[in-house]
Amino acid sequence: EIAEALRPLAGRPLAGVRVLLTAGPTREPLDPVRYLGNRSSGRMGYALATALSDLGAQVTLISGPTALPMPPVAESIQVETALDMHGAVMARAADCDLFVATAAVADYRPADPADSKIKKDATGLTLHLVRNPDILAEVAALTPAPFTVGFAAETDRVEDYARGKLAAKRLDMIAANLVGGATGGFERDDNALMVFWPNGRRDLPMMDKRQLARELAALIAERYRERHAASA
Amino acid sequence: EIAEALRPLAGRPLAGVRVLLTAGPTREPLDPVRYLGNRSSGRMGYALATALSDLGAQVTLISGPTALPMPPVAESIQVETALDMHGAVMARAADCDLFVATAAVADYRPADPADSKIKKDATGLTLHLVRNPDILAEVAALTPAPFTVGFAAETDRVEDYARGKLAAKRLDMIAANLVGGATGGFERDDNALMVFWPNGRRDLPMMDKRQLARELAALIAERYRERHAASA
Repeated sequence: EIAEALRPLAGRPLAGVRVLLTAGPTREPLDPVRYLGNRSSGRMGYALATALSDLGAQVTLISGPTALPMPPVAESIQVETALDMHGAVMARAADCDLFVATAAVADYRPADPADSKIKKDATGLTLHLVRNPDILAEVAALTPAPFTVGFAAETDRVEDYARGKLAAKRLDMIAANLVGGATGGFERDDNALMVFWPNGRRDLPMMDKRQLARELAALIAERYRERHAASA
Repeated sequence: EIAEALRPLAGRPLAGVRVLLTAGPTREPLDPVRYLGNRSSGRMGYALATALSDLGAQVTLISGPTALPMPPVAESIQVETALDMHGAVMARAADCDLFVATAAVADYRPADPADSKIKKDATGLTLHLVRNPDILAEVAALTPAPFTVGFAAETDRVEDYARGKLAAKRLDMIAANLVGGATGGFERDDNALMVFWPNGRRDLPMMDKRQLARELAALIAERYRERHAASA
């Protein structure tokens, strides 16, 4: 089995591997009109879904609202809120080999969304938010857990926060980028990533998101196959 | 001058009329990644900007973030927040003849947006919001004020709320629609409007937003010319 796992697969190193991948933002309704959102365009996730498919994986894409056309993957599911995404992921997580969480899932949602549009009648408003489930941590804690890849979008101290998440959530890999500056990330065509795993790191420099996705997909395949070779 | 104002203008009843039109949602940042948004697609506003241009108006479009291509108008300005939109509008409002506020401007913004990404570290979060300026009411209160057209997206009691806004903000006209159901509005291609003015009303039934925009533009032109004839 070790020999089989290590055999080169002619450009399709993820042939037969079932991938569950989340992408895009989530939207958390305050009322039927207003929501809490974030700046994830979904571009990196969609490009990675395509790149993993190109390596032979059978990809199920679970996506929040984006303005992008669906990539050519085996299955796609559209969701809106973090709770929707949590439900869609947990229903399928036990049947996947590799879980890639590129979605920018809202950490909080309004505690009590209004059924009708909130009327403005005061000089201020206090909004009570409650924590959403941590989809990535829940999947990584499954027994057995799939090979789990997280993403981190940080505005500062990228390596510290990323390595913190890698350890705290018991991930196999985390891809981190710096957002909020002129350095790529959300709403841009280019991006750069620092990829961390236990005792490892690779930096992928600033490049087009599709090319970056291909390089990251190859790295995920390499680490995935190495872990499976080791545990076989 | 009455005769001139009433003379038919061969399909260009707004020739030479300077229109300022706002469209789309605004986004109110919580931090560099998260924002408070709303479901306005900008479609109705962009279609109305085009329809008013087609009637001869010189249109300046001030738009929040949308996924739409810019319509062929005289000038366009992109903004993000309600404060940005307020600044862009107030800098130009004294020089327009007709102000059309289709934008879904956020009523509230976070009191104290964070410079770096908010870290999640508690089971809940309380968000303090403060009121944004009321752009429509400020423009309608100018002396002299342009002919001012507002929009109202309501989830219930449409006529009551719309007539309330018409009176409270001293508008010349308000176009109201019902959102949040299966009845058109945000994020859809179709829409229906109830249009109110002092002592008047016209209902525009469910139709394609571009056709609806043409009918609404014609009604705005009719009411605009009637007021100018009356005050000449």
